[in-house]
Amino acid sequence: MPAEEPVMDIAHLGHVELLTPKPEDSLAFFRDVMGMTVSGQAGDSVFLRGWDDYETFSLQLTASERSGLGHAAFRTRSAAALERRVAALRADGCAVTRVDDSVGHGPAYRFRDPDGHVFELYWETQWYEAPPDRRPALKNQAERYPARGVNVRRIDHFNCLAVDVRACREFFQRNLGLRCTERIELDDGTEAGMWLTSNNKSYDFAFTREAHGVPGRFHHVTFALDSREAILQAADTFLEAGVPIETGPHKHAVQQTFFLYVFEPGGNRVEVAHAGARLILAPDWKTITWTETERKKGQAWGLKTIESFHTRGTPPLPDQEKD
Amino acid sequence: MPAEEPVMDIAHLGHVELLTPKPEDSLAFFRDVMGMTVSGQAGDSVFLRGWDDYETFSLQLTASERSGLGHAAFRTRSAAALERRVAALRADGCAVTRVDDSVGHGPAYRFRDPDGHVFELYWETQWYEAPPDRRPALKNQAERYPARGVNVRRIDHFNCLAVDVRACREFFQRNLGLRCTERIELDDGTEAGMWLTSNNKSYDFAFTREAHGVPGRFHHVTFALDSREAILQAADTFLEAGVPIETGPHKHAVQQTFFLYVFEPGGNRVEVAHAGARLILAPDWKTITWTETERKKGQAWGLKTIESFHTRGTPPLPDQEKD
Amino acid sequence: MPAEEPVMDIAHLGHVELLTPKPEDSLAFFRDVMGMTVSGQAGDSVFLRGWDDYETFSLQLTASERSGLGHAAFRTRSAAALERRVAALRADGCAVTRVDDSVGHGPAYRFRDPDGHVFELYWETQWYEAPPDRRPALKNQAERYPARGVNVRRIDHFNCLAVDVRACREFFQRNLGLRCTERIELDDGTEAGMWLTSNNKSYDFAFTREAHGVPGRFHHVTFALDSREAILQAADTFLEAGVPIETGPHKHAVQQTFFLYVFEPGGNRVEVAHAGARLILAPDWKTITWTETERKKGQAWGLKTIESFHTRGTPPLPDQEKD
Amino acid sequence: MPAEEPVMDIAHLGHVELLTPKPEDSLAFFRDVMGMTVSGQAGDSVFLRGWDDYETFSLQLTASERSGLGHAAFRTRSAAALERRVAALRADGCAVTRVDDSVGHGPAYRFRDPDGHVFELYWETQWYEAPPDRRPALKNQAERYPARGVNVRRIDHFNCLAVDVRACREFFQRNLGLRCTERIELDDGTEAGMWLTSNNKSYDFAFTREAHGVPGRFHHVTFALDSREAILQAADTFLEAGVPIETGPHKHAVQQTFFLYVFEPGGNRVEVAHAGARLILAPDWKTITWTETERKKGQAWGLKTIESFHTRGTPPLPDQEKD
Repeated sequence: MPAEEPVMDIAHLGHVELLTPKPEDSLAFFRDVMGMTVSGQAGDSVFLRGWDDYETFSLQLTASERSGLGHAAFRTRSAAALERRVAALRADGCAVTRVDDSVGHGPAYRFRDPDGHVFELYWETQWYEAPPDRRPALKNQAERYPARGVNVRRIDHFNCLAVDVRACREFFQRNLGLRCTERIELDDGTEAGMWLTSNNKSYDFAFTREAHGVPGRFHHVTFALDSREAILQAADTFLEAGVPIETGPHKHAVQQTFFLYVFEPGGNRVEVAHAGARLILAPDWKTITWTETERKKGQAWGLKTIESFHTRGTPPLPDQEKD
Repeated sequence: MPAEEPVMDIAHLGHVELLTPKPEDSLAFFRDVMGMTVSGQAGDSVFLRGWDDYETFSLQLTASERSGLGHAAFRTRSAAALERRVAALRADGCAVTRVDDSVGHGPAYRFRDPDGHVFELYWETQWYEAPPDRRPALKNQAERYPARGVNVRRIDHFNCLAVDVRACREFFQRNLGLRCTERIELDDGTEAGMWLTSNNKSYDFAFTREAHGVPGRFHHVTFALDSREAILQAADTFLEAGVPIETGPHKHAVQQTFFLYVFEPGGNRVEVAHAGARLILAPDWKTITWTETERKKGQAWGLKTIESFHTRGTPPLPDQEKD
Repeated sequence: MPAEEPVMDIAHLGHVELLTPKPEDSLAFFRDVMGMTVSGQAGDSVFLRGWDDYETFSLQLTASERSGLGHAAFRTRSAAALERRVAALRADGCAVTRVDDSVGHGPAYRFRDPDGHVFELYWETQWYEAPPDRRPALKNQAERYPARGVNVRRIDHFNCLAVDVRACREFFQRNLGLRCTERIELDDGTEAGMWLTSNNKSYDFAFTREAHGVPGRFHHVTFALDSREAILQAADTFLEAGVPIETGPHKHAVQQTFFLYVFEPGGNRVEVAHAGARLILAPDWKTITWTETERKKGQAWGLKTIESFHTRGTPPLPDQEKD
Repeated sequence: MPAEEPVMDIAHLGHVELLTPKPEDSLAFFRDVMGMTVSGQAGDSVFLRGWDDYETFSLQLTASERSGLGHAAFRTRSAAALERRVAALRADGCAVTRVDDSVGHGPAYRFRDPDGHVFELYWETQWYEAPPDRRPALKNQAERYPARGVNVRRIDHFNCLAVDVRACREFFQRNLGLRCTERIELDDGTEAGMWLTSNNKSYDFAFTREAHGVPGRFHHVTFALDSREAILQAADTFLEAGVPIETGPHKHAVQQTFFLYVFEPGGNRVEVAHAGARLILAPDWKTITWTETERKKGQAWGLKTIESFHTRGTPPLPDQEKD
């Protein structure tokens, strides 16, 4: 019976660090088009947030030679939970480094997943204190609704590419106690995608198969908007701002998220999405496994997944530099 | 540090039993107007569900002399979690009875809160198996989208009246480990309302102050719809079906839920609501306390709370029988 | 049979001139909160427009001692149509003055309705030419979608108060050939409201009964938004900007418009509204007449019409100056 | 100056007759999935309507060996207007036949456009009288909102294929006085598409180029839904009902309509669409002409137009019978 006890140590995705070779253009995109608030700056990084993010920031934008993921950070449910997860990672043979000089949160424990992406765990954090001109009318809200651009509400999830998706999934389940809500298994047994959650959202992040055998690559970061209508309005806003739309709006078959993908000026893929009222409430949710045949049907309403979605990631491969 | 560890033993609200003196009319309302599926029948009860409820049912409708709440049931996160909560209740002096003949789930542990409402906890449950004509197109969904009436998605929360709201809140926090996300405290220190959650929804149930000193009364049960537009469509559907609308659609200031209240034929108040993308992700969320002055401003966009909302509950008081 | 021929000489409402004692605050409201574009300035007036208005402007904001309506202007369907309407007005004994120095359109013919409001008719007009930074991505659109504030799409209608509503209606039907789509007639035969259209919109303007016997007063001007969700978003935007919301969002019973009323800083009532897919396509539409009993039911979903809606207009009455 | 006078003789599209080789399945589709009301039956035809259609029906479904368009019928603005249009057609050398036994409307005048499609004009019509169980709560509405399936509001437009699009456009402009709001002209001067309107809707019907040189073919009929959210809900309803979705939901670049295309069981393409608040109010609207290069960009947000959209029509070509 103790075997049934779910591990609930990770609370939620806290933030993602994006690398960009065009820091000024990327900043303008996230601030003016996405409607996010700049809440800090340090070194080569600018920190931004959606109006419903309760912590100081959810996006760290860092000037870099290449685009891609700097790191992704998760908040634990308690100090003890943080200690347990660090202990589990180390017991599993994973190198974990303590980082003490983070902006916006306390000590972080940094490690790499089997594909080389950098993750952090932290417990202590700084709640956002809105300055007078950003204070909301309703006191149960972190920040004023911006009524600007796409009106990003909060960070939702991110997606990495991985050479061995199955190994990554097992790593996160074993060491962080995350639950796999959905996955894709090809006819030859290869795991082509997996979606993990730490809470009632149907996923905090996903890994999909890297087509070129290059480890550590990034697929996209996703911000939640308020409604499907807001996603449609966002499509117009992106169109008017000259932001390249890759695909959408449409509804994913996997996870049923209503999605829209664009590229920010630094080359990273960014999704705005709305999950409707979808929540995973069952503590013993049974993983949904999609077959190759099922996935060939395309998205929920039949949209075919476009080629670039399977092939393009960041940092770009040498022969994709011109993408 | 162990003191910081959150109790995560309750998973979510499973179902509510509503009593109705007009069982046939109430059934027709929930099936035809609300668009719910009948999934069972036993004794004086009919069992219904929304298309996204993963368990067999979320609403038990029981013929009775009076309207009101039969009981509300919560699923725990594990068998051990169920044992811990039962032990905690008993250690607190609360009488807990085991019920072995429930429909749709395993052994339940039944108890009363300080105001006399009946609650149940259970772990083992029956997942919904859709018959062929209710099977969804997407395998990550419990049941086919009905495209009928109000298209209830799933149960969301319920609200009870209580003579001593504060005592009830402390009872649930102490014994079930629930978190209070928001509350109302009047100028004289009286607690006029409180909202509790076991997960990332901003509340699983609420208690508000009973105006007449009568214990055990019920205020409303709420079902989640897919979007705010669906709530607006529901208003038309209720209007056309002759269902009395009490108030709404509008946005609550407390919890920011977009709401619409009606009365089902048996006299119980029923809400359809949409929470947008609102989630309580912070494991250490700080309770929002609304003052009497703040609450006098009405709902989010200024709608004044109508008198019946404060005075009418079920079962009706002797002098409200004609409501 | 010629009697059946509908007069189709008026094409649509072109613009409204609002008077404001706080011109700078009013301008900030319409530009920053309503999301309108400033397209011109002349004398004491600033000219603004929604992104879908095809003419240069749809709102003229004029500094004045008092709030209220400066004038309302309608475009005819042709030069000949303009001549016919001017001739009809003059034949009816109405004084019509030609105005040659209008901004944004050609010669206008100015007259007063029986209640004293100033109207203009014109044919020649100036189409909006978007400057480079306001050019839309799609060439079948007048101006770029702003993604700012409430995102006003275009002017929709206005509403005046009148001492004798019936006389005004008959004046407009007789001289301009407008059709009355809906009206309210009280039990004593008084006409309490009427809605007139020149095209397929269900109304271009409405007149409702003035409660104090003061002629020439104004009730509100309305701008169309893109969806009901946009109206709900607007409610949050107004709330955050400190704009006083009078009533709504809700659905009118009359005309079924989804509405939200606020007051701009100059004291004029402003509505944002969405008509959904509602159009009056029947060329021989039969006027809907609402009785006093029917109107007492409140709005479509039961919201009671608030008192100020019946009593407050602009310019304010001497004893309403403090409103 | 008289040259400027617009002809306003056609009021709106009244109904479309669809031919179907599977009349029972087609009927079930339009009634149960589309949510339309059956309002009559005669010979091989069943008559259906949306809840906001003011006439008796807007869709005539006729059993036939092949799918395709039976005829499309337009109501004029008056009896005199009907006479004028018939006279104009005859003066242009077009054979016009009077039909006296139509269901739901008075005498009709039937003719063929240059590509062979059958059109009718009529003035006298029968307004829908809702039976008691279909009577709406609001008296300014034709019929009760169904809350069933896709909830079709009213007929919106239809689209025919034509070998010589330009000749057809000129025919309709010359004889019916319709206005061309948008068109597509290829680099070689071929007219590939044109959209015509008789009122403030941006189009009543469209013609696009037939790829195989076969005259008289049909592309699709479109019904208006209430909101973009309703289109997204419809996509789920079609998915659950096993209705083949061809493309969408997405936003057209031309006319900016939010669209979703499916095939009804009889093989005809059916669109559900929402135009938002888009209206053509300018009486002198200047036709928008799209170039070949512009159209190659795909739909508004970049969706590529799928091949079948250009090639598939009804009746099917001999080698498309298996489609």
